[in-house]
Amino acid sequence: MNSVFLDAASGEPMDPVAREAYLAALDDGWADPDRLYREGRRARLLLDAAREAVAEVLRVRPDEAVFTTSGTAAIHLAVAGLAQGRSRVSRRIVTSAIEHSAVLHAAEFTATRLGGEHVTVPVTRSGELRTDALAESLRDGAALLCIQYANHEVGTIQPIERVHELSAATATATAGPPPLLLDASAALGRIPLPTPEHWSALCGSARKWGGPAGVGVLAVRKGTRFAAAWPEDEREQGRAPGPVNVPAILAAAAALRAREAERETVAARHRGLVDHIRDQVAATVPDVELVGDPQQRLPHIVTFSCLYASGEALLLELDRAGYSVSSGSSCTASTLTPSHVLEAMGVLSHGNVRISLPWRITAEEVDRFLADLPAVVARVRAEAPSAPPPAPTPERAREAAPGSAAGDAIETIDALGLMCPIPVIELAKRIVDVPVGGTVRVLADDPAARLDIPAWSELREHSYLGEEPVPERGERAVAYLVRREH
Amino acid sequence: MNSVFLDAASGEPMDPVAREAYLAALDDGWADPDRLYREGRRARLLLDAAREAVAEVLRVRPDEAVFTTSGTAAIHLAVAGLAQGRSRVSRRIVTSAIEHSAVLHAAEFTATRLGGEHVTVPVTRSGELRTDALAESLRDGAALLCIQYANHEVGTIQPIERVHELSAATATATAGPPPLLLDASAALGRIPLPTPEHWSALCGSARKWGGPAGVGVLAVRKGTRFAAAWPEDEREQGRAPGPVNVPAILAAAAALRAREAERETVAARHRGLVDHIRDQVAATVPDVELVGDPQQRLPHIVTFSCLYASGEALLLELDRAGYSVSSGSSCTASTLTPSHVLEAMGVLSHGNVRISLPWRITAEEVDRFLADLPAVVARVRAEAPSAPPPAPTPERAREAAPGSAAGDAIETIDALGLMCPIPVIELAKRIVDVPVGGTVRVLADDPAARLDIPAWSELREHSYLGEEPVPERGERAVAYLVRREH
Repeated sequence: MNSVFLDAASGEPMDPVAREAYLAALDDGWADPDRLYREGRRARLLLDAAREAVAEVLRVRPDEAVFTTSGTAAIHLAVAGLAQGRSRVSRRIVTSAIEHSAVLHAAEFTATRLGGEHVTVPVTRSGELRTDALAESLRDGAALLCIQYANHEVGTIQPIERVHELSAATATATAGPPPLLLDASAALGRIPLPTPEHWSALCGSARKWGGPAGVGVLAVRKGTRFAAAWPEDEREQGRAPGPVNVPAILAAAAALRAREAERETVAARHRGLVDHIRDQVAATVPDVELVGDPQQRLPHIVTFSCLYASGEALLLELDRAGYSVSSGSSCTASTLTPSHVLEAMGVLSHGNVRISLPWRITAEEVDRFLADLPAVVARVRAEAPSAPPPAPTPERAREAAPGSAAGDAIETIDALGLMCPIPVIELAKRIVDVPVGGTVRVLADDPAARLDIPAWSELREHSYLGEEPVPERGERAVAYLVRREH
Repeated sequence: MNSVFLDAASGEPMDPVAREAYLAALDDGWADPDRLYREGRRARLLLDAAREAVAEVLRVRPDEAVFTTSGTAAIHLAVAGLAQGRSRVSRRIVTSAIEHSAVLHAAEFTATRLGGEHVTVPVTRSGELRTDALAESLRDGAALLCIQYANHEVGTIQPIERVHELSAATATATAGPPPLLLDASAALGRIPLPTPEHWSALCGSARKWGGPAGVGVLAVRKGTRFAAAWPEDEREQGRAPGPVNVPAILAAAAALRAREAERETVAARHRGLVDHIRDQVAATVPDVELVGDPQQRLPHIVTFSCLYASGEALLLELDRAGYSVSSGSSCTASTLTPSHVLEAMGVLSHGNVRISLPWRITAEEVDRFLADLPAVVARVRAEAPSAPPPAPTPERAREAAPGSAAGDAIETIDALGLMCPIPVIELAKRIVDVPVGGTVRVLADDPAARLDIPAWSELREHSYLGEEPVPERGERAVAYLVRREH
């Protein structure tokens, strides 16, 4: 049986339409479009047509859109160019806490280079920007405000109109509002974009809309200050250095047009499939947390965390079963830190699975995944170095804490040296042993515990009381305190 | 009849081998190679194989080579990363005067950002680095030395072994020699590379070796300090931010291997064709200057300048006749300045034509071009706003200056407001009217005259005496003085 690819948000196979366009452009558009001879002129015509097609989707003028070598490049260039363009007014770069890492790194780098600071605005547990905090942050002025339209890990859509209003309100007699850079990478081709009146610049990545790797798009609206912060290069209006890859751009434009034409139909279908996944996962997998806003979300992304399971083990076990998914848990990529998105949302970071539907996914493929998932999760939990707790039931809770309430009872769990999710598994198993009102003290040195213990406590409606160092057990040892509430 | 493409140095059509590899990798290598699932692992295997193939050609270890999004990107990243890595020792960036503009712009930008300076080393009239001047320049220390292996406009190869020796000699007790960044973009796949012992880092561009657009390569030898000067990104060892385009990299590697396998045979054939072009152009086109070293040169590039002809008109007329060539003359690209390479060599910048042979050019195509060229040049000259002078002959020269020698005779030509090549045409026509030893004073405001009048004088063995401002004729008016010598 064929395997099922469920990680479109990392990039999906090139759309057949894009493949055709690429091959045609290899014949007709391979030359340097800046050359005056026939091959160059032909490439220029094709490039112009591709730019018009993409600009139309973004609802900007063709001369407002340039092509870059990737979505990451578009973001790096945009953050540097926009912040530099307004550095006389401010050197603060404000972003949400859950932007793509390319935005966070570019903001950090650019702010440091300009001698300013990078400020992140918190989000709610469902991943929505805390607009109260944004308004607060904008009060100190900003060189640049970067907000993603929709989150690439959990799908939550941001209220861009409200963000625009709050930003516009900061205009003074001497300076306009900061430019708003909208990272539309996860959204482009999947949902309608906000009106261009609400943003100053926009970034996207062709790989995310079925185009080839190697193409990003950066639109900068007229009237937005933009100062190149890289070596001089006259191509693409000086906004994107390096040669223009005409065949790949043609393919990207063809894919975007094709997706736009089918967008509403496919989005409706995906929305139905994701609703089905949310329902089925909640119904068939015990101890699962669905992550992200259930309504204001991308149609094709659904993320959940399986308590007491390692994200890496889940990912590998799903791969063995024929399903390719992504995970925001630590240990699943080359880094050992869990997803900053999950961290900022304050949700569990272990046992995390992100499903993002490719354009042509079938209901049958989704059903096959849903049929196999519960057994895969059970297997991973069973094979964990520490067996997970039985699923909590009101009866069990009553049994374990027979009426007694002892506010000063403290149970200590020594999970030092044990990796996530074991500290949480131990906490879940042992909290039923203390009376309601009693406290569990979890000693742990895995950094994921700092995120997972409070997240688990909130999810299970116990009270997280805070952390304290345990110097006698080593430099990295921390005690996390949780009060049993029911 | 099909048109003949003679501008391979700007990028040629993708090699069929590369096209095959690209299509195969679209099926097998489209996924993110950092992902742990099957599609990701497959992409990783292909990427590793491509890296090994390219590293083998460069004679470096696979972990010394990273892929970038273009040759330009490789250069920008290399210049910034290497200079930053040694900025505690020096902040001077030394390059030849005829590096690719990407190198010059990156050197200028990086030196400015580091608070240092960018120093260019002059070249001879044939385009060879003046190693005496290099030695002199290195005496003041350098953060980075950038030298191209072979020039992209005139084909001249640099003596890298000698450059390495001179650079190595600057090592002191406290600091090694500066890293040598070798720009091998024009050379890769065409001639053997210098031994890696003679350079620290190397850049190349897949488009120049029959690979796809969108792939550059940057090799940095172990032990070379390299400090990223861009937002954090862990891919490609932190040396090339953005996603890795596996299908395009596979195609690039396939093309490079294929070229290496055929390189000696094809180079010998191209060398013969270029020798034939040099001979025929000199024999059939009057008033032509062949540019670049006749021996130490790339096998596939030949450049010449047709006196008294506009480069743009030549390029357009050749295009109409079915030949696509490049030109270093002004007005042929979006800029109005002539090629900095021709300028640094002190050769004529007008009427310039660069031929660079595509891999599979045929002798028949070259002959067709050679058969048509003389008439095209004659047509362009005849249509010039100012008719070119008759070709000089010893008889004519004797006639025009019958024995008389009047050292103080001065003839003034007013070419103000006239564009290149008219000032030179007028000079050539009128110099025969002054006695040997007499002086012609050309008034011109086209900046190309500053380059072309001395270059023409040297070519025709007259003495260029210098320039002086002519404030009474306007801010930009300059008088160029030439003494008739024969």
